[in-house]
Amino acid sequence: MIGLTNYAGVMESLMNSAEEKQPSSPLTNSWAKKQESSKSQKPNGVGGFVLVHAGAGYHSESKAKEYKHVCKRACQRAVDQLKAGALAVEAVAAALVELEDSPFTNAGMGSNLNLSGEIECDASIMDGKSLHFGAVGALSGIRNPVMVANRLLSEAQKGKLSAGRIPPCFLVGRGAHDWAVSHGIPPCPSDKMATKFSLSAYKRNKRKMELAEKMDTGHNQTKKRRQSSENGNGSGCLDTVGAVVVDLEGNVAAAVSSGGLAMKHPGRVGQAAHYGCGCWAENACNMNSYSTAVSTSGCGEHLIRTMLARECSAAMQSEDAHQALLEAMQNKFISSPILASEDRVLGGVIVLRCCRCVEAQPSQNFQGILVEFLWSHTTESMCVGYMSAQDSKAKL
Amino acid sequence: MIGLTNYAGVMESLMNSAEEKQPSSPLTNSWAKKQESSKSQKPNGVGGFVLVHAGAGYHSESKAKEYKHVCKRACQRAVDQLKAGALAVEAVAAALVELEDSPFTNAGMGSNLNLSGEIECDASIMDGKSLHFGAVGALSGIRNPVMVANRLLSEAQKGKLSAGRIPPCFLVGRGAHDWAVSHGIPPCPSDKMATKFSLSAYKRNKRKMELAEKMDTGHNQTKKRRQSSENGNGSGCLDTVGAVVVDLEGNVAAAVSSGGLAMKHPGRVGQAAHYGCGCWAENACNMNSYSTAVSTSGCGEHLIRTMLARECSAAMQSEDAHQALLEAMQNKFISSPILASEDRVLGGVIVLRCCRCVEAQPSQNFQGILVEFLWSHTTESMCVGYMSAQDSKAKL
Repeated sequence: MIGLTNYAGVMESLMNSAEEKQPSSPLTNSWAKKQESSKSQKPNGVGGFVLVHAGAGYHSESKAKEYKHVCKRACQRAVDQLKAGALAVEAVAAALVELEDSPFTNAGMGSNLNLSGEIECDASIMDGKSLHFGAVGALSGIRNPVMVANRLLSEAQKGKLSAGRIPPCFLVGRGAHDWAVSHGIPPCPSDKMATKFSLSAYKRNKRKMELAEKMDTGHNQTKKRRQSSENGNGSGCLDTVGAVVVDLEGNVAAAVSSGGLAMKHPGRVGQAAHYGCGCWAENACNMNSYSTAVSTSGCGEHLIRTMLARECSAAMQSEDAHQALLEAMQNKFISSPILASEDRVLGGVIVLRCCRCVEAQPSQNFQGILVEFLWSHTTESMCVGYMSAQDSKAKL
Repeated sequence: MIGLTNYAGVMESLMNSAEEKQPSSPLTNSWAKKQESSKSQKPNGVGGFVLVHAGAGYHSESKAKEYKHVCKRACQRAVDQLKAGALAVEAVAAALVELEDSPFTNAGMGSNLNLSGEIECDASIMDGKSLHFGAVGALSGIRNPVMVANRLLSEAQKGKLSAGRIPPCFLVGRGAHDWAVSHGIPPCPSDKMATKFSLSAYKRNKRKMELAEKMDTGHNQTKKRRQSSENGNGSGCLDTVGAVVVDLEGNVAAAVSSGGLAMKHPGRVGQAAHYGCGCWAENACNMNSYSTAVSTSGCGEHLIRTMLARECSAAMQSEDAHQALLEAMQNKFISSPILASEDRVLGGVIVLRCCRCVEAQPSQNFQGILVEFLWSHTTESMCVGYMSAQDSKAKL
C-alpha cells in the first residue's frame, strides 16, 4: 500500500524539499493508483539529502507510528552528520545504525530468528566516491552489522595489509564477528538482540512450519490447514532496512541491513550482504552523468539473482528517471527470465540520483546539485522516509 | 606466461576440435606475444565441450606435469558425463570435483590455509538453462565444496520449502557445513584436507607476515627485508579452479572453486562464492543470440568489485568474441574506475560461447552448435585445458 510511505513523518513536511517520483508496479493495484504522482524536479542545493526505507513487505497498521518514528530518527541522524560535514558514507551508516537499533525493523536488534532460533545478520555499504564496498553475512552477536561493513570498507581504503595481503571486503559468520571485535566493535550477547516480538514470531512460525511439514507427509491433513500454511512466509519477514545519501560535496553512498528471512537455514546469506544486490552507489564520472545510489529490500534470493541494486543504478543514467526505474523493475526484476519460475517476485528499491548542473529551462533556472529520488516495490507495502539537510534547518 | 596453457595435455591433441582465441592483456608481455593466435572458428557439432582452468596466478614449473594431468582428468570427467547424456551443469560439477581433489590446486583438498591455519573454501555453480545458482562461502570440513553448491542449485530448482519458505542459494560457514551433511554429503576432517605442501606454505607465509609486521612497527627494519615482504602474497595463492561446459543440447554451465587467498582472515569470502563474480552461465534467449559461460580466477576482491564473470558474459554478445573479451578485460577490469587505487589488478577468465546456427560463408558451411572458447589473464600465468566430447571418442 502506497499509504505506507506516509509512516515516514518527514515525508509530508519536506514534500517540497526535493523531487518525489513513484513509479507504478504492475503487480500491485494500490500502487497503480499513485502512478500520477508529482514529476516536478526541485533543486536540493548543497545541503545534502537522505532517503531511508524500513523494508518492502507487509507492515502492520498497528506499528505505523513506530515505523514513522524510526524513519524520522534515521533521517535526522544522517542529516546531523551531513551538517557536521561528514561524507555521504558516514551519514548513511549513521542512518542505518538508527534503523538497526529499532526493535520493530528486521535488522540488528529484533531481527528475524533463523531455523535454530538464532539471529544472523547481513549488511553492506558502498561509497560512491571511492567505489569501495564492505559487507558482512550471517553475523551473530554484533548489535550493528552495518558498523562492521563500514569498518571493512574504511580498512580496505587504507590499502594492503602486512606482507602485501589484500584486505577483505566481505566477511561472514564467526570470522566476521571476531574481526569486528578485534577492530573495537563491542560484541552483544545474542539473547539481547532478540525481542519479545521476534521470539513470539519465531514460535508462531515454527508451529506453522511443523504443521506444514506434517501435512506434506500426508498425515491428518485438511484443506483448510494447507491453505493457511501457504501463507506461512507472511508478515514482517521482509522488512530489511536501508538508506541512500548525497552529501554536501555531491558524493553518494548506499547501505542496507537485514536479519534475513524468518526461519532461514543457519548460514543463509541474503542480498543485503551481496555486492550489487543489496546496495549500490556510484559518483558521476566521465562515463556517467549522474551519481546514483540504490538500496533494496525484499526476498533476498530474488534480489541476488537479478542484481537489482546495480541494475537500477545503471538504468538511472537514462534521462527520464521515473520511466527508467519503471522499466528496470519490469524488465530486470518482475519479468526477468532469471525469475521466470517464481510465482511471486518480491522486492522494492529506493533510488537517489543527482548531478551538478545548470538548468536552462525558464521555470528551473538554478545552479547546484539536482537531487531526484524514487522508490518502487512489488510487495504489499514499502516504508520510506526522507529529509533534506538544507530544509531541515528550518523545519525540524 | 602463455606457455602455461600447454600444461593441459588435452590442448595440443584437440587443437582442431574447436576454436581457440587468446586475447592479449596489456599487462603481460608474454601474453601479448600470443596476440595473433588462431581466429578460425570450427563447429563443435553436438558432442559437447569442456574448458577448465587451474587458476590465474603463478604456477611453478616443477609442478607442470601435475597441472597437466589434473586438467586432463577434469576434462575427461566432464566429457564422460556428457557422453552419458548428462546436462552441462552435472558435467561442470564433475570437472570441478576432479580439480578440487587434486592436492596441487587451491580448491578443496590442499587449499590455502587461512590466518588461523584452517581451510575455508568458496565455490559456486550456475546453470545456463534454468539460470539457477548455488554457492557456499567459508565452508570447512567438506572435501568437495562444489558438490554443496550444486546441491543448493538443484534443491532450489525443486521450488519452495515447507510453509512457503524460499530455498537458499547461498550458505556460509557452519550452517553450510550442516546443510551439506543433512543432505547426504559426507563431512571430511579438516586436517585431512591440508597437504604437506599447504602446511609448509602456511608456515612460510606466517614467518613472512610476522617479519613484515615486525618491520611495520619500526624495529630493526632494513630496506631489503621490506622489499621482500612486499612480495609475500606470491606463489600459489591465486590458483582457483573452474570450468565451463556446453552439453549435447547446447545448454551451458559454469563453476568455480577456491580455497581463497593464503593467510586470509577467517570468514573472508572471495569471488568464487559471489554471484556474477566467480562464474556465470546463460543460455541463448530472445534477447541474447549466444549462450555464454564464464569462470574467473585471481584476486577475489578485485573480481568481486568488478563482477568480472558477468561483465565478460555480457560482452560476449558482441559479434567479435576475441575483441569483445579484450575490451571487457581492459575496460571492465584493468582500467575499471572501481580498481583505480589498486597497484596490481590480478585476474583471469575462461569463456565459452556458442550458438545454433547455419553459417553461409563458403569456407564454413555447417549446421549445429558453433562453439568458441577464449581466455585472458593479467597474471603471470594461467593454466587452461579443454576437450571436445565428439573428438575425444577417437583421440582418447
